[in-house]
Amino acid sequence: MSHNSFGHLFRLTTWGESHGPSIGAVIDGCPAGIPLSEADLQPWLDLRRPGTSRHVTPRQEPDQVRILSGTFEDDRTNGPVTTGTPISLIIENQDARSKDYGDIRDKWRPGHADYTYDAKYGLRDYRGGGRSSARETAMRVAAGGIARKVLGADITIRGALIQVGPRAINRDKWDWDDVSNNPFFCPDAETASLWESDMDALRKDGSSTGAIIEVVVSGIPAGWGAPVYGKLDSDLACAMMTINAVKGVEIGAGFGSASMRGEDAADEMRNGENGPGFLSNHNGGVLGGISTGQDLIIRFAVKPTSSIRIERNTLDRNMNETSVSTHGRHDPCVGIRAVPVGEAMAALVLADHKLRHAGQSAS
Amino acid sequence: MSHNSFGHLFRLTTWGESHGPSIGAVIDGCPAGIPLSEADLQPWLDLRRPGTSRHVTPRQEPDQVRILSGTFEDDRTNGPVTTGTPISLIIENQDARSKDYGDIRDKWRPGHADYTYDAKYGLRDYRGGGRSSARETAMRVAAGGIARKVLGADITIRGALIQVGPRAINRDKWDWDDVSNNPFFCPDAETASLWESDMDALRKDGSSTGAIIEVVVSGIPAGWGAPVYGKLDSDLACAMMTINAVKGVEIGAGFGSASMRGEDAADEMRNGENGPGFLSNHNGGVLGGISTGQDLIIRFAVKPTSSIRIERNTLDRNMNETSVSTHGRHDPCVGIRAVPVGEAMAALVLADHKLRHAGQSAS
Amino acid sequence: MSHNSFGHLFRLTTWGESHGPSIGAVIDGCPAGIPLSEADLQPWLDLRRPGTSRHVTPRQEPDQVRILSGTFEDDRTNGPVTTGTPISLIIENQDARSKDYGDIRDKWRPGHADYTYDAKYGLRDYRGGGRSSARETAMRVAAGGIARKVLGADITIRGALIQVGPRAINRDKWDWDDVSNNPFFCPDAETASLWESDMDALRKDGSSTGAIIEVVVSGIPAGWGAPVYGKLDSDLACAMMTINAVKGVEIGAGFGSASMRGEDAADEMRNGENGPGFLSNHNGGVLGGISTGQDLIIRFAVKPTSSIRIERNTLDRNMNETSVSTHGRHDPCVGIRAVPVGEAMAALVLADHKLRHAGQSAS
Amino acid sequence: MSHNSFGHLFRLTTWGESHGPSIGAVIDGCPAGIPLSEADLQPWLDLRRPGTSRHVTPRQEPDQVRILSGTFEDDRTNGPVTTGTPISLIIENQDARSKDYGDIRDKWRPGHADYTYDAKYGLRDYRGGGRSSARETAMRVAAGGIARKVLGADITIRGALIQVGPRAINRDKWDWDDVSNNPFFCPDAETASLWESDMDALRKDGSSTGAIIEVVVSGIPAGWGAPVYGKLDSDLACAMMTINAVKGVEIGAGFGSASMRGEDAADEMRNGENGPGFLSNHNGGVLGGISTGQDLIIRFAVKPTSSIRIERNTLDRNMNETSVSTHGRHDPCVGIRAVPVGEAMAALVLADHKLRHAGQSAS
Repeated sequence: MSHNSFGHLFRLTTWGESHGPSIGAVIDGCPAGIPLSEADLQPWLDLRRPGTSRHVTPRQEPDQVRILSGTFEDDRTNGPVTTGTPISLIIENQDARSKDYGDIRDKWRPGHADYTYDAKYGLRDYRGGGRSSARETAMRVAAGGIARKVLGADITIRGALIQVGPRAINRDKWDWDDVSNNPFFCPDAETASLWESDMDALRKDGSSTGAIIEVVVSGIPAGWGAPVYGKLDSDLACAMMTINAVKGVEIGAGFGSASMRGEDAADEMRNGENGPGFLSNHNGGVLGGISTGQDLIIRFAVKPTSSIRIERNTLDRNMNETSVSTHGRHDPCVGIRAVPVGEAMAALVLADHKLRHAGQSAS
Repeated sequence: MSHNSFGHLFRLTTWGESHGPSIGAVIDGCPAGIPLSEADLQPWLDLRRPGTSRHVTPRQEPDQVRILSGTFEDDRTNGPVTTGTPISLIIENQDARSKDYGDIRDKWRPGHADYTYDAKYGLRDYRGGGRSSARETAMRVAAGGIARKVLGADITIRGALIQVGPRAINRDKWDWDDVSNNPFFCPDAETASLWESDMDALRKDGSSTGAIIEVVVSGIPAGWGAPVYGKLDSDLACAMMTINAVKGVEIGAGFGSASMRGEDAADEMRNGENGPGFLSNHNGGVLGGISTGQDLIIRFAVKPTSSIRIERNTLDRNMNETSVSTHGRHDPCVGIRAVPVGEAMAALVLADHKLRHAGQSAS
Repeated sequence: MSHNSFGHLFRLTTWGESHGPSIGAVIDGCPAGIPLSEADLQPWLDLRRPGTSRHVTPRQEPDQVRILSGTFEDDRTNGPVTTGTPISLIIENQDARSKDYGDIRDKWRPGHADYTYDAKYGLRDYRGGGRSSARETAMRVAAGGIARKVLGADITIRGALIQVGPRAINRDKWDWDDVSNNPFFCPDAETASLWESDMDALRKDGSSTGAIIEVVVSGIPAGWGAPVYGKLDSDLACAMMTINAVKGVEIGAGFGSASMRGEDAADEMRNGENGPGFLSNHNGGVLGGISTGQDLIIRFAVKPTSSIRIERNTLDRNMNETSVSTHGRHDPCVGIRAVPVGEAMAALVLADHKLRHAGQSAS
Repeated sequence: MSHNSFGHLFRLTTWGESHGPSIGAVIDGCPAGIPLSEADLQPWLDLRRPGTSRHVTPRQEPDQVRILSGTFEDDRTNGPVTTGTPISLIIENQDARSKDYGDIRDKWRPGHADYTYDAKYGLRDYRGGGRSSARETAMRVAAGGIARKVLGADITIRGALIQVGPRAINRDKWDWDDVSNNPFFCPDAETASLWESDMDALRKDGSSTGAIIEVVVSGIPAGWGAPVYGKLDSDLACAMMTINAVKGVEIGAGFGSASMRGEDAADEMRNGENGPGFLSNHNGGVLGGISTGQDLIIRFAVKPTSSIRIERNTLDRNMNETSVSTHGRHDPCVGIRAVPVGEAMAALVLADHKLRHAGQSAS
């Protein structure tokens, strides 16, 4: 029951603060014999890394991950492989500017965890948000890279940004190939170009915006998930809601299913190519907490970045009424970099459930 | 890491199937010395109990709960009190009709867990849905009654149905007193009466509808919750998503926050009556996974009941294409009885976090 | 992190007090499709049941177990089988004499948990020891019966009493067949008959005695166990130490290994019939926390029953110095009935590790 | 349910192999506001560190620990304090000789985990024992230093070596001050000097020896521990049995209680200075799994080091019968350096139970 651990059989523990010397993770329970080197993880980190476009924070962090334990190579293996023991990952913090934190030190930034950390712990590491910083999610992405290896090549996990502020994509234009061709992970090229100007305007205003991310997982066999309190969808909801700034999660038709009628919502069955098939996927690939074999469809909403230049009312630690304006290097839309994080969290949940399913059913 | 347990320090384990001899629960970790008898739990069960109006299933289940362990009374206590040891609850199933299950036995009902249980376990208890039946939620409600005792009288947990099918309430008409005056737990009397006719029409069609529930918790102190993987909101999201038929969860502004700008979304702070106050509550009472002291606001969407009279395409266990129509006693809107279940899940999460917070901070 | 649960993937939760209406257990995580009925569990319970000889408590408890959930039978199964959902077990308490508990109610019996429960919880169920009673172990034995089913017929778990008071068996006379031919589970018929007179003398004195139990498990494959904090031997040590009155646990040569030299203690390897073999088993079948494929050998020591007729100094709840003498129905040597309990705990640990191993290695 | 994590609310996760770049630990759940710097941990590490006398391995490891996260210092704190977030510890491996591991690589050393790791994982990091090396215990000792801080100055945890090979100390000569005056942590100066020659003879023979360690904890209040599967003594037994080479654990009179009679074993009660007192401590400070307020007394047995110069029969990975003799730098008596490790494990268990007790009782 660790506060900073996620998962059960495939288990991630993260540590580190935004402006400490480094951040890191320990992955426990990984099966042995899986080829794994730093080169397998770096590409995922590069997707989440800051400083890649003008629409994300300019903080310069190469986010170079090192594996400190849990892999081994000898003349009988073809490169390093996992040993079944804990895999320790570390990233050195590079661009932790030793500036004056005076304003943040004493004032609680609205919408941030400043006040709540103080209320809980009686103190907080105010440098860059400390432990509450989204910098922690780098480790989720690295661990997600290992989870993907556990899941194998037949399972694909893809995320996309489908709404920025009030502007949603046109789902008819969805093209997965577009996702890597714009700075937004947007599957609709036209909308992506509109977002460019939306974001430029926002940045000029010193404001920020919310967003919605969709993650789609293909290739999961039917039967993963553990009712009734270890459901695949409840674990996915939990996973996404642990990501910084996330305020809502839905599966399949999600909130839209509230408006549906029974004959429309239930996915009819027919023979498929490889066993049972479905005529629709309003349930997003999960029934009763167990995978159906269809695509898993998860959507989550991210609120606007709370660190903005626009001045806002707040209190300081001595309960004086004051105001605050944040001039640091911040993402005007944290939803963008949340795309690889959402993918990683899905991978972590699924790797855990793959092992959990094997534990009960393959023994 | 139990599939059928929920919570950590205040921990619920449930067991039982829809048509077995009984259903039950074990609550472990409850503090000692709390007055507790069956009379404390029955009122909550009566709210969820079937057969209370024409809009819910007519199955007759008195849902009379018995406490089999964990309380004690002697001449030094004023009635029975908790002892700190496991509290065992049991409810006998009464109205499990021993009818012919032939159709359900062999066919997978679309939208139900029939197929997925078969895929996972190689067999399933098809009688009334077995373990996947919403009957299991009776035990959540009973356990939620204990959780409320742990939270104490200063914390109130109230739920309401705010949308049925496409028709939402008028939030300006919200009156908590109305909730107990209609068969829908609806806080808006006018909308409630419209739902009456909506539901009558649905029932006539042999169809069903989805719904949205809102749960509001008042009185939580600032500081509960455990970043970064035991956040109050991620645990609440998980909790709600474990309820049968739930497809989406949001906190505070939820999915609406995607469309907001930073200056609107962050809740400004000012001196309040008892410490820090906030000028809005878009974050729904949680920042960085920790409670702010404001009301917790949780919303969740329930899909339409999958068991409907309208005929639907499906497969049988031998992979023959066929169709199914369900004539049993079912709720045309499971969202109604999900209101007390949602309240109970919130209570369970909060009791657990009260104890977790004490564990780290009161030691 | 449940106080009253044991195991991870194969997980037992028990509830109930010595003189409550019933005791029970929930077993979660059991694989599906295993034939299971009450008749499979009763023989194990009958071995532990009180009232079977003059050397154990005369309390009359038939200990008839009922399965309330988690199994299912239809025309396609050959009798009831597990469904993969929680198995709920219950035993009604029969012989809970409603006598006057006055003396025990107010006095702390030396060597009992009376004082410590009061110190921890501020109150206690004093009737027959309440939750701290060895009656709880009936549920371990029933659950152990299910664990044996999970392990399969190729794995045998056998226990024996090897010392009562200062008198140990002659290991050269060890005959497993003798175990069921005397009231002590003694593998050495000669020593068993000496114990008869030892015990008669003790009972006449109103005293009690300690004992040592040995459990031997055959048929475990090499590779079970999970270093470094989920070792097979640390889990076994934990398991045995949770049994009432146990004060010591050892594996293989145990405390004797302290006196050994390296060349004697390390078990040399040679080709065996089916793979690697060993020339000795001082390590008791575990190396580095992982099974070697040899017999697992576990020994544990049980202290003398604290409830004796001989008067002893103590305090009452008001801190008055007084004395107490216990006239209830008690085992003069709780070690006897601890034999089937020790076997059951070994079965629970191994079923859990079988599933854990599959979770990491069979996925 | 992490294989490499220990504890629940105060939770240690370790990672790293004997000859990898570094070893480390993450401590989660530590209360906030506790003064903590590396200087608090180093003295404990120095006690366990190799190379301190001719009786332990000459491997040169300064074991300099660094804290990478979880503490914070500003003008309002008096030096660095814990923040309530995960504390990451790291030690660089210095003296990992890059020698030829050929012999160990292919042969399974008797008494070692070589064979069992291969059996479990299909491969192993053979360099210095990899993950199964006692080097991992350095992290336990560092974490134990933090646990001591959580417990506070009123609780003292002291360990001593009480038997080496067949030679036990004279308990009448026990003097805690002697423990730091000899290379054995021996509380009996006379026996310590005899061990010097015993050990010199052993080393000359190329052999090794077992040992027994006793850990005594003073100052624990009555009421810690969580029946029935989270007992203080079952958690202590588990903790000690996770230490490399430990084969037995006992509490209080331990295995000796098997030979006792009830009137001798039960510790009589009388008024003490600060509440209830006891006339003896055969139960070692625990009754029913809950602390009595007396000293906790834990003893554990360590087998002789398996790495010895004396040649022993074994197999290689290709199942050829062969022999092996270990010429590396090894402790002839691992029991010596197990003393600070045993203390650390006791500290970890107790810090966890302090928090668990607060979680249930202080909320």
